[in-house]
Amino acid sequence: MSNSYGKLFKITTFGESHGAAVGVIVDGCPAGLEISVDEIQHALDRRRPGQSDITTPRKEEDRVTILSGIFEGKTTGTPIALVVNNKDQHSHDYSHIEHAFRPSHADYTYTAKYGARDYRGGGRSSARETVARVAAGALAAKLLQHYGISVQSYVSQVGSIKLRKPYQELDLSQIDSNKVRCPDGATAARMIGLIEEARDTLDTIGGVVSCVIQGVPAGLGEPVFDKLHAELGKAMLSINAVKGFEYGSGFEGVKMRGSEHNDEFYTDEQGNVRTRTNNSGGIQGGISNGQDIYFNVAFKPVATILQPQTTINDAGEEITLKGKGRHDPCVLPRAVPIVDAMAALVIADFLLRQRANKV
Amino acid sequence: MSNSYGKLFKITTFGESHGAAVGVIVDGCPAGLEISVDEIQHALDRRRPGQSDITTPRKEEDRVTILSGIFEGKTTGTPIALVVNNKDQHSHDYSHIEHAFRPSHADYTYTAKYGARDYRGGGRSSARETVARVAAGALAAKLLQHYGISVQSYVSQVGSIKLRKPYQELDLSQIDSNKVRCPDGATAARMIGLIEEARDTLDTIGGVVSCVIQGVPAGLGEPVFDKLHAELGKAMLSINAVKGFEYGSGFEGVKMRGSEHNDEFYTDEQGNVRTRTNNSGGIQGGISNGQDIYFNVAFKPVATILQPQTTINDAGEEITLKGKGRHDPCVLPRAVPIVDAMAALVIADFLLRQRANKV
Amino acid sequence: MSNSYGKLFKITTFGESHGAAVGVIVDGCPAGLEISVDEIQHALDRRRPGQSDITTPRKEEDRVTILSGIFEGKTTGTPIALVVNNKDQHSHDYSHIEHAFRPSHADYTYTAKYGARDYRGGGRSSARETVARVAAGALAAKLLQHYGISVQSYVSQVGSIKLRKPYQELDLSQIDSNKVRCPDGATAARMIGLIEEARDTLDTIGGVVSCVIQGVPAGLGEPVFDKLHAELGKAMLSINAVKGFEYGSGFEGVKMRGSEHNDEFYTDEQGNVRTRTNNSGGIQGGISNGQDIYFNVAFKPVATILQPQTTINDAGEEITLKGKGRHDPCVLPRAVPIVDAMAALVIADFLLRQRANKV
Amino acid sequence: MSNSYGKLFKITTFGESHGAAVGVIVDGCPAGLEISVDEIQHALDRRRPGQSDITTPRKEEDRVTILSGIFEGKTTGTPIALVVNNKDQHSHDYSHIEHAFRPSHADYTYTAKYGARDYRGGGRSSARETVARVAAGALAAKLLQHYGISVQSYVSQVGSIKLRKPYQELDLSQIDSNKVRCPDGATAARMIGLIEEARDTLDTIGGVVSCVIQGVPAGLGEPVFDKLHAELGKAMLSINAVKGFEYGSGFEGVKMRGSEHNDEFYTDEQGNVRTRTNNSGGIQGGISNGQDIYFNVAFKPVATILQPQTTINDAGEEITLKGKGRHDPCVLPRAVPIVDAMAALVIADFLLRQRANKV
Repeated sequence: MSNSYGKLFKITTFGESHGAAVGVIVDGCPAGLEISVDEIQHALDRRRPGQSDITTPRKEEDRVTILSGIFEGKTTGTPIALVVNNKDQHSHDYSHIEHAFRPSHADYTYTAKYGARDYRGGGRSSARETVARVAAGALAAKLLQHYGISVQSYVSQVGSIKLRKPYQELDLSQIDSNKVRCPDGATAARMIGLIEEARDTLDTIGGVVSCVIQGVPAGLGEPVFDKLHAELGKAMLSINAVKGFEYGSGFEGVKMRGSEHNDEFYTDEQGNVRTRTNNSGGIQGGISNGQDIYFNVAFKPVATILQPQTTINDAGEEITLKGKGRHDPCVLPRAVPIVDAMAALVIADFLLRQRANKV
Repeated sequence: MSNSYGKLFKITTFGESHGAAVGVIVDGCPAGLEISVDEIQHALDRRRPGQSDITTPRKEEDRVTILSGIFEGKTTGTPIALVVNNKDQHSHDYSHIEHAFRPSHADYTYTAKYGARDYRGGGRSSARETVARVAAGALAAKLLQHYGISVQSYVSQVGSIKLRKPYQELDLSQIDSNKVRCPDGATAARMIGLIEEARDTLDTIGGVVSCVIQGVPAGLGEPVFDKLHAELGKAMLSINAVKGFEYGSGFEGVKMRGSEHNDEFYTDEQGNVRTRTNNSGGIQGGISNGQDIYFNVAFKPVATILQPQTTINDAGEEITLKGKGRHDPCVLPRAVPIVDAMAALVIADFLLRQRANKV
Repeated sequence: MSNSYGKLFKITTFGESHGAAVGVIVDGCPAGLEISVDEIQHALDRRRPGQSDITTPRKEEDRVTILSGIFEGKTTGTPIALVVNNKDQHSHDYSHIEHAFRPSHADYTYTAKYGARDYRGGGRSSARETVARVAAGALAAKLLQHYGISVQSYVSQVGSIKLRKPYQELDLSQIDSNKVRCPDGATAARMIGLIEEARDTLDTIGGVVSCVIQGVPAGLGEPVFDKLHAELGKAMLSINAVKGFEYGSGFEGVKMRGSEHNDEFYTDEQGNVRTRTNNSGGIQGGISNGQDIYFNVAFKPVATILQPQTTINDAGEEITLKGKGRHDPCVLPRAVPIVDAMAALVIADFLLRQRANKV
Repeated sequence: MSNSYGKLFKITTFGESHGAAVGVIVDGCPAGLEISVDEIQHALDRRRPGQSDITTPRKEEDRVTILSGIFEGKTTGTPIALVVNNKDQHSHDYSHIEHAFRPSHADYTYTAKYGARDYRGGGRSSARETVARVAAGALAAKLLQHYGISVQSYVSQVGSIKLRKPYQELDLSQIDSNKVRCPDGATAARMIGLIEEARDTLDTIGGVVSCVIQGVPAGLGEPVFDKLHAELGKAMLSINAVKGFEYGSGFEGVKMRGSEHNDEFYTDEQGNVRTRTNNSGGIQGGISNGQDIYFNVAFKPVATILQPQTTINDAGEEITLKGKGRHDPCVLPRAVPIVDAMAALVIADFLLRQRANKV
């Protein structure tokens, strides 16, 4: 198990989907940061189930409690423990999945790894674990805000419906203006239609979240292994259902010539170093260059579908399984605050690490 | 700086492109592994400059020396230091780049980060650092071989020329049969033509390396943060010029429905758990499931081009810069052994970590 | 802040003395270990305030709750969160210490480090944090028990009253037979008398805890930096009020000649490698040699005394301060389970780490 | 194996006593520090064998080479590799120890741990490994000097001959004025006599090194686990032959009452917070308080003696063994620069870590 992330701004999460609680310890948040429980709750509310008819209709309030590390409205430098109790963790019937290996779930791999598993829902492999990340991310985002850095994610693709506009042509203040969290209204409407169709056919659909980070000073990232984009990639790939990560020109950039792809430097009127294009995605040699950072994260379709599927049980026998209960037909709208959280955690960590690099 | 990678099988690299040497300490290689200097040298020879007319014509022998940790042909459990001396590190003239910020290089970001930089070539940001990774990767690959695990990478795309066949239809023993390291002869010929054209027009071109890992037992990977694919992603993204990573169905998979994408389990005739499709890329919930692992890595076009480019110097003044010397028109053929090395290091580390997971 | 300890069997603690709760996440406890909440509670009961008239008369029940990681009576390999709520955390009056720097407390240093501090009691610097360690240590001890390893600590010195017998001449089953936790009844009685005298004169007194670890196989410890005794030393020195650590012959051993000090090897009747003496304390070159491990830990007198003392406030002004409330006149009896816990955590971690050392 | 130390100022060492070389990578030394090879060499010269007739008469020059990380006389922020070649590593005859388990050496434990060992001398368990520490320590010491911090160690005890004066009464500039490195001439003479007597009787003798660190600002140290004294303790205990560590009042302090032991605060004429006594050894709650830090380190007598000893071989058979060659009768004089190095490394690391603790 490895349930910690970050080197100086470090989080450690715990909790199963149907256990008593999920939570996080944030160790290394600098002292003196003003933060209220409401700010953390606000981030959790964006991730909460039941927020619209294209997400799971499960009703969970996900109220966060602060157990330590914040005193008189400010961080003290000591570890901050945040806990969210699970509702009704004892009331469900898991007999249909206790012995089943659900297709494209982690039932089989957890059993292979640990010899047994908590079969109540996804247990530790459930995306419910991301509650803890979002809570911790709210602290990181507050730290970034203190230094003038913003993180903004949005849904840029659902199935084959792709938002073609680059982020510069979008109004990112509109991300939360619709239930799919795509800041382009027309595209959002089409995405919503596609998700509804998937839902109504008892199926699910994947998509892409794009993220833009602005205000990052030049110099963040720790080569040669902890390059800024390498940590962003790891952080994103650690989120449930993620299948790919690209930044700047990404996979499309491989088709370009160096003469097209290179970002020429210039000095702007304020005397700042800037680049005329930004195929680098704000990162060169693994270090931020002061331009906007942007990247894409691919999410597969949710594995739980309400149709019958053939699979095996833990005795190796073929069985037919059908999803029960209330599940997301598309994870994308609720993935947005999770991408925001992980991105904020990565940048916060590098912000602190950079302080050690010069005499 | 963060020049270490791995938790139990850990490497720490050092060295600048034009300093005295590059090298690596491997700490945590299990005792009792048979390894010869020739096996390490063989891996380095696949990465070596000057190996063909579509790579840099620089001649460097890159001879490796073992300074510690191997005794009587076997690892002893103590740290293994491997060093490769640089040739001619004092003979060059760097006056044209001493003060320049080359486009899409790390000159500006290293200066922003550290206050100054070693301006002899790329210094620490040069891909010459990967010599150390490849040497260490040879040790990891030997460990994997001991456990029946193989790692095989190949070039699957150069520019817009893409190998459409999945790896199952390729003869991976043919990877080294041509100079571009694409196991499909016809596609390889087209890729070589494209690289030659880029070279002859004083330009560069990007591409994709695909990697297949076979023989990995179910159970490797350490959720929730050190998921197997998250570490593979970080390891790949830490390689110079990499812009993206996807595994299994990747970015294309987002277009699929859950009912198509899910990999149904079955029990094969030998009683092994298997899946009928492998959109999961051999990894579910961040843990290997015993099927083949496969992923793609996107490389941008090399930033150094032999055409004039406009940029600025460290005083902020606009200058014109033209690449000198001998550079790769396409990094892909030489990137293959680097992807092999990093993949082997990731798997080796998880192989050791898995030993601690059960009573 | 650094609130994590251990590399594979890793704990992360949180909580202030007068905050909502203290607790711990144990990440890396192997799956399949049987453990009950009662076993954890039993360890906490040995540490609990109010257990005798020579410890603090504060009444705290310190009931532990398991939030995750244990399912159907066994560990699952996922992180185990343990929480102990604090009682009455809002009811106290801290006005007398809000601005004071208490002598030999951490008030000044926390303020210097973080710019401010949680002034309710010791905050994070309070020994209440060790509740979390003891809870986690119970898990580690259970793992050790599974492998036939025992950890037994006892009070060997209070003030100048020193138990002269080596551990081999003691009946370690008698440790809990008296309230000072010294297994020699006569010495225990004298120690108790001394603590009572200190208490009655509104003063405090220091002492030494000795620890014996039996059943450790040869091979544990990770040179050159994570030597077995180096980690034991760090773990002990991280406990509140500890001033020194020595193992085997310790500080007395420096007076010996090599010819006296060396432990000659022999083969016993069962064919086991053994040493005739054990000045090495069971550790050679930082690695266990299969003999008993033993060490001593020095604790200073408790800093809070009920007499007036001169000191300064955070404005730098001289003030007179007098301890209030209910405090331990001697920390030693309650330190025993804390030493047990930290020793168990160290050995458990090395037990897991050793699994990675051979092909 | 664990051959790395430090979190931000991190060293990784390699090399066996009779292999090709020993060396170190320093990762995390801040950029912009001026350092010359002579400064590193000077530290190594204090540790070098053959420096006097009370140390081993082996002649080794121990010339250091810088392979990376320093450019134009300054650190660049990239990893600094330092290598010292071993002399004559192939010329010796080890047949007498190839199969022997030398008493109180690590021959048996390394074999138990790794299944085999490099039997040429002590291999990795030899104190020759500390060459790497001393080289790295010179960099750390230079960084400390930049911030006005000094580290000074000296021999305070050999056998039963103990320097009774506290460090405040000594002239620490006289540490190197005699060959035993005790700054009190009269005591030094007695120590030297005792070492000569041990040497002449083919025996060895232990002792204590004391260390004083001055100029450390208040605020260094990372509770609750990485307390300043806990890391100092671990660092010291990781040095070959060390058996104990105590700081401030140490083991003697346990005899004191709280009322005696507590260090009262006052404000000095310059307005600085100070303590009237310093039983705390400059550290309270694991954090420096701005007063002098001081501690003691106990070294056992060297295990290699030139007298015959009974032991066993790796077949479990009893054998008689006699040390050959040239060995130190007392490790203390040469241990002084090693204690200096490790102390400097600990403080340098905490200096950098402290930068992350406040907004």
